[in-house]
Amino acid sequence: MSARAGKVVCDLTVSLDGYAAGPGQSEERPFGDDGGDGSGATLHAWMFEDADENRAEIDLLGSARAFVMGRNMFGPVRGPWDRPWNGWWGDEPPFHAPVFVLTHHAREPQPMAGGTTFHFVTDGIGAALERARAAAGDGDVAVAGGATTVNQYLAAGLIEELRLHVVPLTLGAGPRLFDGVPPLELAQVASRPARRVTHLTYEVLG
Amino acid sequence: MSARAGKVVCDLTVSLDGYAAGPGQSEERPFGDDGGDGSGATLHAWMFEDADENRAEIDLLGSARAFVMGRNMFGPVRGPWDRPWNGWWGDEPPFHAPVFVLTHHAREPQPMAGGTTFHFVTDGIGAALERARAAAGDGDVAVAGGATTVNQYLAAGLIEELRLHVVPLTLGAGPRLFDGVPPLELAQVASRPARRVTHLTYEVLG
Ligand SMILES: NC(=O)c1ccc[n+]([C@@H]2O[C@H](COP(=O)([O-])OP(=O)(O)OC[C@H]3O[C@@H](n4cnc5c(N)ncnc54)[C@H](OP(=O)(O)O)[C@@H]3O)[C@@H](O)[C@H]2O)c1
Ligand SMILES: NC(=O)c1ccc[n+]([C@@H]2O[C@H](COP(=O)([O-])OP(=O)(O)OC[C@H]3O[C@@H](n4cnc5c(N)ncnc54)[C@H](OP(=O)(O)O)[C@@H]3O)[C@@H](O)[C@H]2O)c1
Repeated sequence: MSARAGKVVCDLTVSLDGYAAGPGQSEERPFGDDGGDGSGATLHAWMFEDADENRAEIDLLGSARAFVMGRNMFGPVRGPWDRPWNGWWGDEPPFHAPVFVLTHHAREPQPMAGGTTFHFVTDGIGAALERARAAAGDGDVAVAGGATTVNQYLAAGLIEELRLHVVPLTLGAGPRLFDGVPPLELAQVASRPARRVTHLTYEVLG
Repeated sequence: MSARAGKVVCDLTVSLDGYAAGPGQSEERPFGDDGGDGSGATLHAWMFEDADENRAEIDLLGSARAFVMGRNMFGPVRGPWDRPWNGWWGDEPPFHAPVFVLTHHAREPQPMAGGTTFHFVTDGIGAALERARAAAGDGDVAVAGGATTVNQYLAAGLIEELRLHVVPLTLGAGPRLFDGVPPLELAQVASRPARRVTHLTYEVLG
């Protein structure tokens, strides 16, 4: 029996049509063709422009004790790690915890300031989650994105709580939440409207 | 200048992944493979099981003065009208107003009890909306579904208010809202959580 009390959670900001980013990501446009300048500002206005109103959700985002993410959320480098890249977030990333980056391209762990270390995991979603769980202790593990990664965890039944921040725009293309994921039964555990976003929290029942 | 004050609205119940029905509709399963018995009861539990709690939204649904719908929402008959079919709703359908059914197969109007007449429109979404507007006078026109029909009106910029009832399940396949619709800018005008649904209302800005 495990003493773990933490959950596997997933927070994702999605357009009303379910996209977590637009297509065509590049170093200059981390969110691709996102209806704005590619910075994700359109999707994340609720965080950056309306932070006070959404304080509870923003605080929850950062409360996980380990993170799993896909290689494209980490950066625009594709294929071999042939140039320096330590994430979009500067020297002190906002995770303050171990981050397990899924990739097919092995790389040494990359420690950063403020407690974040990027670990690169080449043996799949199960292995990444196991390592994140071990690192999180009794805290939560967050599957942080993008949609390609989240969809794999949803399909495997490994996400317990899904927190969607639904924003008033559609993108029409890009990595889409639930794409290819078999039907799920959910329980709506919370739903909170704010001015330019609705925060939906679901327990994933199976 | 027109004296019309009504709006073109669209109410749709969607799974969290955006489907308005499952795949494989038949006479026995009007909503196809909807995660339940095909009756739409899973998607529409908020209407049928939690009617008191959702009274305001249910009342609004019926308040339009003319309706436009796709031929599959009207029934399971495909191709020529080679057998009697007057809708899923019995002798007195809940519309109490003219209903314009989009189809490629011409048919005479079908009057029903209680004020509903089904008109079959073979000359496209613009023509159907014009006829519905004329019939609605200063009342609202509702584009009632399914997703295939709604998507055409969204793509053409003809829906002014979109009211989504988002329910806690995913379907993974079927006619999907926003499928093939170019990016839209929306304004969230209301968002109301109920126990097993969240009601989201958007103004479509363009
Ligand atoms: N809206 C939000 O809240 C949110 C959150 C996070 C990210 N985003 C955005 O989403 C976009 C990235 O999402 P995405 O869906 O394109 O990609 P992603 O999930 O971040 O990364 C996908 C990549 O990760 C690696 N990967 C994933 N699963 C793997 C596995 N099982 N084994 C080995 N490697 C695996 C593969 O890279 P390799 O094969 O190249 O190694 C794969 O191409 C970015 O634009 C980002 O800004 C948005
Ligand atoms: N969740 C909800 O709130 C909700 C609401 C409504 C319906 N539904 C469900 O959605 C499903 C039906 O939706 P759907 O997306 O499959 O189909 P639909 O939009 O109801 O109907 C599509 C059909 O309508 C005709 N049509 C559509 N546009 C046309 C055009 N521009 N010109 C001529 N004909 C046109 C075509 O039929 P022909 O070519 O055969 O004539 C087409 O195959 C049903 O299962 C229904 O129960 C759910």
